[in-house]
Amino acid sequence: MIKVGIVGGTGYTGIELIRLLHSHPEVELAAITSRSEAGRPLADLVPSFVSVAPLVFEEPSLHVLQGCDLVFFATPNGTAMRMTPELIDAGLRVIDLAADFRLQDPALWEKWYGEAHACTDLLAEAVYGLPELNRASIKQARLVANPGCYPTAVTLGFIPLIEQGIVDINHLIADVKSGVSGAGRAAQQAVLHAEVSESFKAYAIGGHRHLPEITQNLQFVSKSQPVGLTFVPHLVPMNRGIHATLYAQSLDENAQDLTELFMQRYKKEPFVSVLPAGSHPETRAVRGTNQCILSVNRVSKRQIVVLSVIDNLVKGAAGQAIQNMNIMYDFPEEMGLGSIGLLP
Amino acid sequence: MIKVGIVGGTGYTGIELIRLLHSHPEVELAAITSRSEAGRPLADLVPSFVSVAPLVFEEPSLHVLQGCDLVFFATPNGTAMRMTPELIDAGLRVIDLAADFRLQDPALWEKWYGEAHACTDLLAEAVYGLPELNRASIKQARLVANPGCYPTAVTLGFIPLIEQGIVDINHLIADVKSGVSGAGRAAQQAVLHAEVSESFKAYAIGGHRHLPEITQNLQFVSKSQPVGLTFVPHLVPMNRGIHATLYAQSLDENAQDLTELFMQRYKKEPFVSVLPAGSHPETRAVRGTNQCILSVNRVSKRQIVVLSVIDNLVKGAAGQAIQNMNIMYDFPEEMGLGSIGLLP
Amino acid sequence: MIKVGIVGGTGYTGIELIRLLHSHPEVELAAITSRSEAGRPLADLVPSFVSVAPLVFEEPSLHVLQGCDLVFFATPNGTAMRMTPELIDAGLRVIDLAADFRLQDPALWEKWYGEAHACTDLLAEAVYGLPELNRASIKQARLVANPGCYPTAVTLGFIPLIEQGIVDINHLIADVKSGVSGAGRAAQQAVLHAEVSESFKAYAIGGHRHLPEITQNLQFVSKSQPVGLTFVPHLVPMNRGIHATLYAQSLDENAQDLTELFMQRYKKEPFVSVLPAGSHPETRAVRGTNQCILSVNRVSKRQIVVLSVIDNLVKGAAGQAIQNMNIMYDFPEEMGLGSIGLLP
Amino acid sequence: MIKVGIVGGTGYTGIELIRLLHSHPEVELAAITSRSEAGRPLADLVPSFVSVAPLVFEEPSLHVLQGCDLVFFATPNGTAMRMTPELIDAGLRVIDLAADFRLQDPALWEKWYGEAHACTDLLAEAVYGLPELNRASIKQARLVANPGCYPTAVTLGFIPLIEQGIVDINHLIADVKSGVSGAGRAAQQAVLHAEVSESFKAYAIGGHRHLPEITQNLQFVSKSQPVGLTFVPHLVPMNRGIHATLYAQSLDENAQDLTELFMQRYKKEPFVSVLPAGSHPETRAVRGTNQCILSVNRVSKRQIVVLSVIDNLVKGAAGQAIQNMNIMYDFPEEMGLGSIGLLP
Repeated sequence: MIKVGIVGGTGYTGIELIRLLHSHPEVELAAITSRSEAGRPLADLVPSFVSVAPLVFEEPSLHVLQGCDLVFFATPNGTAMRMTPELIDAGLRVIDLAADFRLQDPALWEKWYGEAHACTDLLAEAVYGLPELNRASIKQARLVANPGCYPTAVTLGFIPLIEQGIVDINHLIADVKSGVSGAGRAAQQAVLHAEVSESFKAYAIGGHRHLPEITQNLQFVSKSQPVGLTFVPHLVPMNRGIHATLYAQSLDENAQDLTELFMQRYKKEPFVSVLPAGSHPETRAVRGTNQCILSVNRVSKRQIVVLSVIDNLVKGAAGQAIQNMNIMYDFPEEMGLGSIGLLP
Repeated sequence: MIKVGIVGGTGYTGIELIRLLHSHPEVELAAITSRSEAGRPLADLVPSFVSVAPLVFEEPSLHVLQGCDLVFFATPNGTAMRMTPELIDAGLRVIDLAADFRLQDPALWEKWYGEAHACTDLLAEAVYGLPELNRASIKQARLVANPGCYPTAVTLGFIPLIEQGIVDINHLIADVKSGVSGAGRAAQQAVLHAEVSESFKAYAIGGHRHLPEITQNLQFVSKSQPVGLTFVPHLVPMNRGIHATLYAQSLDENAQDLTELFMQRYKKEPFVSVLPAGSHPETRAVRGTNQCILSVNRVSKRQIVVLSVIDNLVKGAAGQAIQNMNIMYDFPEEMGLGSIGLLP
Repeated sequence: MIKVGIVGGTGYTGIELIRLLHSHPEVELAAITSRSEAGRPLADLVPSFVSVAPLVFEEPSLHVLQGCDLVFFATPNGTAMRMTPELIDAGLRVIDLAADFRLQDPALWEKWYGEAHACTDLLAEAVYGLPELNRASIKQARLVANPGCYPTAVTLGFIPLIEQGIVDINHLIADVKSGVSGAGRAAQQAVLHAEVSESFKAYAIGGHRHLPEITQNLQFVSKSQPVGLTFVPHLVPMNRGIHATLYAQSLDENAQDLTELFMQRYKKEPFVSVLPAGSHPETRAVRGTNQCILSVNRVSKRQIVVLSVIDNLVKGAAGQAIQNMNIMYDFPEEMGLGSIGLLP
Repeated sequence: MIKVGIVGGTGYTGIELIRLLHSHPEVELAAITSRSEAGRPLADLVPSFVSVAPLVFEEPSLHVLQGCDLVFFATPNGTAMRMTPELIDAGLRVIDLAADFRLQDPALWEKWYGEAHACTDLLAEAVYGLPELNRASIKQARLVANPGCYPTAVTLGFIPLIEQGIVDINHLIADVKSGVSGAGRAAQQAVLHAEVSESFKAYAIGGHRHLPEITQNLQFVSKSQPVGLTFVPHLVPMNRGIHATLYAQSLDENAQDLTELFMQRYKKEPFVSVLPAGSHPETRAVRGTNQCILSVNRVSKRQIVVLSVIDNLVKGAAGQAIQNMNIMYDFPEEMGLGSIGLLP
C-alpha cells in the first residue's frame, strides 16, 4: 500500500486519475490538490463522485504532499518542472502527466513550449514512461515523464516496423484524430458543443507540440537514425478516444506477415492487442480502458497502413501513469486497470 | 461462487450484464447463449471484449444451462415466459430482464404485449425486483422480474411522496427522457445516427408499455389507492441515461423539508443518492453505474418537482439485475457494482 | 428595399440574423457591428461565410448606424436599452432580440436581470413581437421586443387552450428542452462539448428568466386572469432546437376536438403547423426554419398534453425578428424565411 | 422552366435533391417516385416538409416520367442502368446519382459492383459530372454520371498538383473522413446512433468502391499516366460532411506558392474556395451548401498536405447533380445553390 498525492486534479486527466486510483487496491489517495479549487469537495466539480466518500481539494504544497510516496502532476505544462525538485529532494517519486519532462533537449522544449526549461538536471534524469519501450528504466525511476496521448498512439503503431528496419523512415505519415477531451476542461470557445459537434477539421497543420515528442520516440526506436514524420491532428466530435492512421512505405515487396510481426512484438504486453489484418479497431472498444488496439495492413505492394486506437485520457494519460506506478512499485502491471470498455 | 448463465447476450442489456458479471468476484460466467450468434466469439460482436479471455456464444438450451445456479434472461419480451418453467423445475433461479413477469395481471400483460401470457402460475410467484421496495421478497425469490428502465427512475422518485401521503396521487406527471440504447441493438431506421442526433422528440404519446408497470408500482406504494399518472417518454440524442422530471401537487402548503424526507427514506440504500434542493442531477454522473440520483424541489407553494437520473442499462437493467442477484445469494449488495461514472 | 444594421453580430443569434438577411430580397445589409471584433471580416468568425462577398465588423455607433432604416440588436441583455433611445430619436426603428424590452414591468425586469431598467419610457412603448398575438401592433411599432426562445415555444402551445377557457390556468406545466446554442457562443465550461454531449439535465430549477416573460404572455391571453405556471428547462446534447412538452388540465371531460381547435386558431399563420393528434413533432423538422410545429393530445379524460417545437435561433430569435421586420415594412410575411429544414 | 422527375426519393440523397429543387426557380418538380413508398406523402417520411405543399410518391414508370425533360436517379446502384435506356430513347436526359455510369470500364464495374453492367453502350456515352473537369462535355450530355462523394472531395484536392506535374503521382495518399449519412437511410446495425456516436474508426481498409473511381479521375488529370493511390475512409460520429486529408510528395523543394496555384486553378469556379495556407477548412462551413473548401500546405521541404471539405449530400451528391443540370440547361450555374451553411 502506498500513499499517493495528485497535484491538479480538476482537469479531465486529473479526474480520470482520481477515478482509477480510487479503486486501486494498493493505493491510498492521501491528497488531491488544486490551487483554484482548494476547499471544495471533488463531487462539486465531478458529479460522478456524488456516491463516493468525499474527497476535498487542498492547496498544493510540500506540507500537504510530503507524507506521500508518489506524486502525480496533472497540471498545465510548466508547473511540474517548478515543484518537482523539492519533492524529489524530500524523497518522493514523481510522475508528470504534462509535457515538462518529455523532451530530452531543453532547447527543443523551449522552442515548442515558449519558455526556458526550469529544471534541466532532472530533465536529464527523467525516464520517458512508455512501458512498451522503457520498462526496465521506469522500474528504477524517481521521475517519470508520462507520454502524450498522440505520441502513445503513434509510437506503439510504428515500433515494430521501425525496429525491424522494414520501412522507409524518411517518409512516415501519422494522420491522427482525437476526441475533444484532449483540449482540456478550461472554457474555450473552440471546444464548445455548438462549435465541435456536427463538424470535423484538422488543426495545427503548421506544427503541433507532439511532433517533436513523437520524432524523439521514433528516433529512439531507430537507434538515432533520422526520422522524417508528417503529423496532422484532427478534432473528432466525440469526447474520448484517439485513432491514428499511420502510413509507411515498405522497403521490399516480399509478403512478410506483418500481423505476426506485431503479435510477436507485443505478445507480452498486457495493454496492447493486435487484430487480424483487415480489422478496424474502434475507439469505443478502448473507452475508459488502458488498452491500445492495433491492426496492420499491407494495402498494396509497398504501402503499409497501421490503425491504432487508445483512450486519450487512459492509455494516453491517467491509465498509463498508473501502469508506470505499478511498474515502479512492483505491483502487477494490470492492477487497477482491468476494466472493460462501456458499449455503447 | 455461483455459476451463472445468460440467455440472449447480444443486445445492449446482455452485453452490459456480461461486462459487469465478468468482474464480479463471486460469479463464474458459465454460459452465454444466443440463438442467432451461436458459435461466435463475444469479441466479434462487442469490440471492447477484445482484450479479455474469449467467451463464445452457445445455443440456448436446458442442456447448456442446467449446470448454472442462476440464469438471466436478456431476451426480447415473450422468450423468458416460455423457457423459465423448465429452468425453475430443474432447480435453477431466474432473473428476467425483459417484461414477461413484471405485470401481475395477465390480462394487462396481454393488452400491452399483444399475446396471451404463457406462464401465469409463475407470474403469480414472480417477485418484482426493485430492491428499494421489495428487498425481503427478492431474497427468497426463485424468479425475479427485473424492472423496466423508466419504471425504475420514476418509481424511485415518487416513493417518498406517496408513502407519506403528501401529494395528490390523482394527477401525477412523469416527463421522462431516455438515451437511445433503450431501443435496443436491432437495426431500425428510427434509431439510426442520422435520424436521432441533432434532434429531440416525444414518442408513444398514445401510450407506452411502461405506463401500466409504473402505475402498478405506485399503487403498491399507495397501498392500492388508485393512482392517476400521465407518462410522456422522449428520445434524447445520446446513448445512455434516463432523466425523469416528476410533477406532483402537494396536499398542503406547509414547508416540510422534502429533501430531508427523501434522505431519510433512502439513507440505507446503497444505490440511491439525494442531492440538496436546487441541485440538478445529470445523467453522465451515473453513466455505467448502478446509482440513482435524486433531487426534490418545492418550486411554488403547491408544486413539487423531483429530478431522477439513472443509467438505463445499469440501474435500469443489468446493474439492478446483479443487485437482485447479490440479494438472492447474500452477497454484499454493492459487490461488482462499485464503479464510478466516466467523465467525460 | 430597406437598409438594415445589426449591433452585436458575433453570437449565434447575430450570425443567424446575418445569414437570413443576406438572402432577403428587400434588405440591404448596411452595417454589422461588434465592439470586440471591429475590423475583422465576418468569415474569420463564421467559416460558412467564406464563399460569400466579404462583410466586415464595424464599431457600433450612431454614426455607423444612422443611415439605416432599421437596427437589430443581437447583444447581451442591457445593451439595447442604453443605445436604443438615440436611434429612435434619429428616426430609426429597432428590433431588440435581447430581453431589454420584453417585461412590461420595470420592477420585474430589475428583479430578474439584476439592474434598474435604463429606459422605462421606451419600455412602455415597446411592442412584444409575437406576431401570432400582436400582429397589428407590430405593424406600427417603432420598437419591437423580440420574444425569447422558450416563451415563443410555450406561448404558441398554450394560446388556443387559454383563449378558449377550457383548461385550469392555475396549474400549467411547461417541461421544456433546449439545444445548447441557447446558451450563446461565449466560452463557458458548462457548455463545452465534453460537458454537454452524452448527458442530459435540468437547470435553473430555482427559477429562470423566461418564467416571468411566459407568465406575462399567458396572462395577456387570459385577459389578465392570474396564471400559475411551473417551468422547468433542460439542456439537450444537440446544437439547435426547443421541444416544449406542455401539461394542462381540461376543465371538462367532453371530447372536444382539440386538434381542430388548434388548426382553426392557426390556419392563417404562415409559421405555425398543427399535426394530427398522436403525432410527435421533432426539432429537426424545423432546423434552420421559422416554423413552429404543434400537436395536441388528450391523453386521459382531463389531461391535455401539447408538444411544440421550434428552432431556438430562428422562430426563437433571428427568424421571428425578420418576420417582425416583414410585418413592420409590409413585406410578405414569409419573405426570406421560406427554407426547408435540412435532414439529416 | 423544365420539368423534372426523381426516381428513388426516399434516401438521404433523394430527400436532399427534393429540398434543393423545391426552391429552384427554373424547375417544376413533376414527379417523385419510390417503389416502396408509392402513395405516401413526402412529409410522412421527411418531417421537415410538413409546412410545404404536399408531394406524394408515385410508382416509378415510363408513364409517370415521360412528361419530364430530365430525370434524376437517386436509387441504389444497379437501378439506373436498367431504366435509363428507355428514358433516353424517349428523349429525356438523365443524371444518375448512383454509381452505374461512373466507371468507364465495364469489367472494372463488374469487379467492384458484383454484377455485369446492363447497359454498356450508354456507359460509353455517359459524361462524368465533375464540372471542374468536364464542364463542356456536361453541357451537351444526354446522360451524366454524378460523381461519388469521396471522389469529389479527393479529386478537387489533387487536380492542381497533378495538372502541374509537381508531385510524385505514384504515392498519393487520401485519408478521408465521412459523416454517417453517406451510408444511407436503410436500417443497418452498424450505423445506429448507439454504434456510431462517441466512436471513430476506419472501414473498408481492404478496398472501397470509390478507389477505382478516384483513380480513374486522377489518371484523367494526369493524361493517362498511372497513378498510385492509397485511400482509407473513416466514419465520423456526425451526420453530414467529408474531410479529405491528402498527402503528396513534391518533386522539387523550391518554394512554389501552392495556394496561389490553387487559387488560379479555381478562380472561375463558383463552388470551390481556397483558403490561405495554414487554414483549417471545417465541414460545418459547407453544411447544406454546394461548396468545396480547400487549403494547401507545404509542411516540410517535400511534403504537401491538402485539406478538402464538402457536404457529402450536396457537392458530393444532390447539389452537384443540380449544378450539372444548370450547366446542361444553360441556367446560371449557381441557381438554386446559393445558401449559406447553418452555424451551428
